[in-house]
Amino acid sequence: MLSKNEVKYIQSLGHKKRRDQERLFLVEGSKMVAELVQHYPSQIVRLYATETFYGHCAAAKNIQQHFVVTDDELERISQLQTPNQALALLHYFPQQEWSAAANDWTLVLDAIRDPGNMGTIIRLADWFGIKQIVCSPDCADIYNPKVVQATMGSIMRVTIIEKELTSFLSKQQLPVVGAVLCGKELASFTFPGNGILVIGNEANGIREEVIPLLSDALMIPRFGEAESLNAAIATSIFLWELKRG
Amino acid sequence: MLSKNEVKYIQSLGHKKRRDQERLFLVEGSKMVAELVQHYPSQIVRLYATETFYGHCAAAKNIQQHFVVTDDELERISQLQTPNQALALLHYFPQQEWSAAANDWTLVLDAIRDPGNMGTIIRLADWFGIKQIVCSPDCADIYNPKVVQATMGSIMRVTIIEKELTSFLSKQQLPVVGAVLCGKELASFTFPGNGILVIGNEANGIREEVIPLLSDALMIPRFGEAESLNAAIATSIFLWELKRG
Repeated sequence: MLSKNEVKYIQSLGHKKRRDQERLFLVEGSKMVAELVQHYPSQIVRLYATETFYGHCAAAKNIQQHFVVTDDELERISQLQTPNQALALLHYFPQQEWSAAANDWTLVLDAIRDPGNMGTIIRLADWFGIKQIVCSPDCADIYNPKVVQATMGSIMRVTIIEKELTSFLSKQQLPVVGAVLCGKELASFTFPGNGILVIGNEANGIREEVIPLLSDALMIPRFGEAESLNAAIATSIFLWELKRG
Repeated sequence: MLSKNEVKYIQSLGHKKRRDQERLFLVEGSKMVAELVQHYPSQIVRLYATETFYGHCAAAKNIQQHFVVTDDELERISQLQTPNQALALLHYFPQQEWSAAANDWTLVLDAIRDPGNMGTIIRLADWFGIKQIVCSPDCADIYNPKVVQATMGSIMRVTIIEKELTSFLSKQQLPVVGAVLCGKELASFTFPGNGILVIGNEANGIREEVIPLLSDALMIPRFGEAESLNAAIATSIFLWELKRG
């Protein structure tokens, strides 16, 4: 049985301040946790799961710190509206440096604030084989449970690096392509084999100081009347265009 | 001041059964309601808004049934977590028939269940100039407040028609293109000037009975490791590819 203190402790990791102190974050749900058990067992610090979960995922019993919880207990420690069998505590990822790679694109996120968008964009990067994302410090926290859930596991496979964007971009030799509202038509541009793609904030787009650092400003033309596209949708169209060849 | 019965009545429109009886739905938020007041004033059956809203949107006072509410009252009638200045009751749209149009594509949705996806897809259709969406009867209710909010106003501009898909598609002479997991690569296909694009359910894709009715089954190739793409994201990539020329 979980002690009151343990429940409180796990709940407290829903808050960024506490996560940053402990350098631990939460991953939930039978599918994502089963994937962790299979591919990243050494990353799991503690695992709380129901009998049902251990029944389907026998390897979970090899995690050193694994505990059986009831559905009621899971509900108390979960951040989800509908808790689902398993919750794992993971270490923050080690901080990494950005590296220019041949034949590869880096995605740069300028103040993506919505956790759902942030998670969806990380999942998109993973689908399109983008291995590095550089985030401005005012992006949604990647360890926010809503971000983690929206990545559907992709957070384990994409390297995410926090950087002040103007200093990062001003040193670049690579082409720096930005998604803007008034630019050249996306389909008219031929994407080179490597470069940097910048996606801006949901409401304000790419910040003013970054605009002069773009080598190419591109836009998705509008064929109808909707006022705007969601940031994750715009990212998907740019990444597809970049990869479709 | 709103009576208890009026509050209860407006709250009850959060439920599909009650909406279908009354044939009324809710639109909320200062931006969307201001757009209604400007472009579709005759559609508004009743308007509830704060003094602030009427201050910024003077034309709202021309709506015959308009009422000033306090922030507290708005909170009681709102379906939003953060109510925002205005709530309007609108009539259901008149039922329309699908019509084949030259140089136009129809989007067909097969069991899109998530209200956020449904609303985002309607907004995407509006951006890409798609004027008609045909939905299977088991799609999310388009009058669900979460769908309406996610459309960001596009629900007023796109005609949405409910149809049983196999009978609708089996009568078609137009090309019927479907998004599937195993098909021809999307970029290898040349989209003709008009046709029908079918997008399937979030978990199960296009239903089995519909697959034989596709003239072309296309897929978005995966370049990395994410297991899947969200249905709205897949729709955006298909619509872009269809329109990019």
